[in-house]
Amino acid sequence: MKMERITSLKNPRILAWKSLKEPRGRKAHRAFLAEGKRMAEEALRSGFPVRALLLREDCLKDGMDALAAANLPEQPPVFLLPEHVFSAVCDTKTPQGVAAVLDLQPKPLSGNRFLALDGLQDPGNVGTILRTADAAGFDGAILSPDCADVFSPKVLRATMGSIFRVGLSFPESLPERLEALKREGFSVLSSQLDGEPFYARQGVGEKVVLVIGNEGSGVSGPVRAVATHRLRLPMRGGAESLNAAIAAGIMMYELTREDG
Amino acid sequence: MKMERITSLKNPRILAWKSLKEPRGRKAHRAFLAEGKRMAEEALRSGFPVRALLLREDCLKDGMDALAAANLPEQPPVFLLPEHVFSAVCDTKTPQGVAAVLDLQPKPLSGNRFLALDGLQDPGNVGTILRTADAAGFDGAILSPDCADVFSPKVLRATMGSIFRVGLSFPESLPERLEALKREGFSVLSSQLDGEPFYARQGVGEKVVLVIGNEGSGVSGPVRAVATHRLRLPMRGGAESLNAAIAAGIMMYELTREDG
Repeated sequence: MKMERITSLKNPRILAWKSLKEPRGRKAHRAFLAEGKRMAEEALRSGFPVRALLLREDCLKDGMDALAAANLPEQPPVFLLPEHVFSAVCDTKTPQGVAAVLDLQPKPLSGNRFLALDGLQDPGNVGTILRTADAAGFDGAILSPDCADVFSPKVLRATMGSIFRVGLSFPESLPERLEALKREGFSVLSSQLDGEPFYARQGVGEKVVLVIGNEGSGVSGPVRAVATHRLRLPMRGGAESLNAAIAAGIMMYELTREDG
Repeated sequence: MKMERITSLKNPRILAWKSLKEPRGRKAHRAFLAEGKRMAEEALRSGFPVRALLLREDCLKDGMDALAAANLPEQPPVFLLPEHVFSAVCDTKTPQGVAAVLDLQPKPLSGNRFLALDGLQDPGNVGTILRTADAAGFDGAILSPDCADVFSPKVLRATMGSIFRVGLSFPESLPERLEALKREGFSVLSSQLDGEPFYARQGVGEKVVLVIGNEGSGVSGPVRAVATHRLRLPMRGGAESLNAAIAAGIMMYELTREDG
């Protein structure tokens, strides 16, 4: 195994890894950083191409254990960093001492049940929705260009590792992509406050795309126009709406309810 | 209507209202602050005892409109504050210019469907769960003493006004309170990762308490012991768990599904 110690904050590798906190850095290096013991373990196990494993000096053993558990055909290079250097690379204030640098190459989309996120901008919501999609048994998510960046540190944290398990697709035009899926026999369900009652929906087949809209303005006009169904969850008390991630969770679990 | 202008940051009223951001201040004054146009409007309409309406000088008209719309039998005193004084009182960084000071006197609990929050500590989760309970048609929530304070600014914001519509109860002992409800014929459903399949539950009647546990450690031992049902949602992908607010939302909507 190749192992190297880096102690200078000005080392070009350190500068490159630090830049992965920002969209520009991720784009330039075509890479992202999975921070934390659990995220790094999930990354190693997931089959995502791992460019490097970064370990704080006091976490060498944790890192070696994670590497051994992942049982990779080819070991990624390991870098040992003193505390101040490791902290500079990480986004979290009190990092756990293990992080992985990964190719920015999401799992491709395949399956029967997809989410479509139409302008979801809160990183916590986007991450939580991907985590919930994974748990519900949805196969992946299609994101419009104005969604929060799924490879940003905040979204990654909220996914709790599900980023490595759900398929992802980033079309230039969400309505065009949904049109294409419709032609392949998918029902396109738009979640909107002025829709028909969700629990009384009819004619939704096995192949489903569930569209969740922007936190403030909901599903956009062009996407509503493509939908085969426009549906709303009941609002029984005085609440006017649900949080987008909550609504997504309720509907995904309802759509997979028959799976038991 | 009684209206007064306060321009000094050292005015005793200003100092008192500022202190409502912290638990100690809310306890001392038995009051809390509903910030923002919509929260203040909901507060005025809710029937909660309003001690004062605070308006930034440029928002006099908004405040008067809200007061007129609420059509109160007795007008609360109105205080006009210059921008720097209003901002000092508020917790939000860019306040909307309208706020209401209210008696710390939650809506009492009554009905058939309650949540119990057992050590929920994230303010955003607690607020979102109360908002979702309102939308789902749950009647209220029972909170253990170690939950996030529902009258803190962060929780209030996340409730989006539902704080004024759901009943609330704060027993010294959550297990004892649940025991009492069980004797009244309530099913006590504990949501836990090692429970029985939620969708196959049997013998849950009309009277239900759904228990949601701490974000990290789940439902506590004494509360699990009281439960009539221990249930888990299916985890179909690789995700190990759901966010507490998401799980609460899915289960509340499932439990009220027959309401249509």
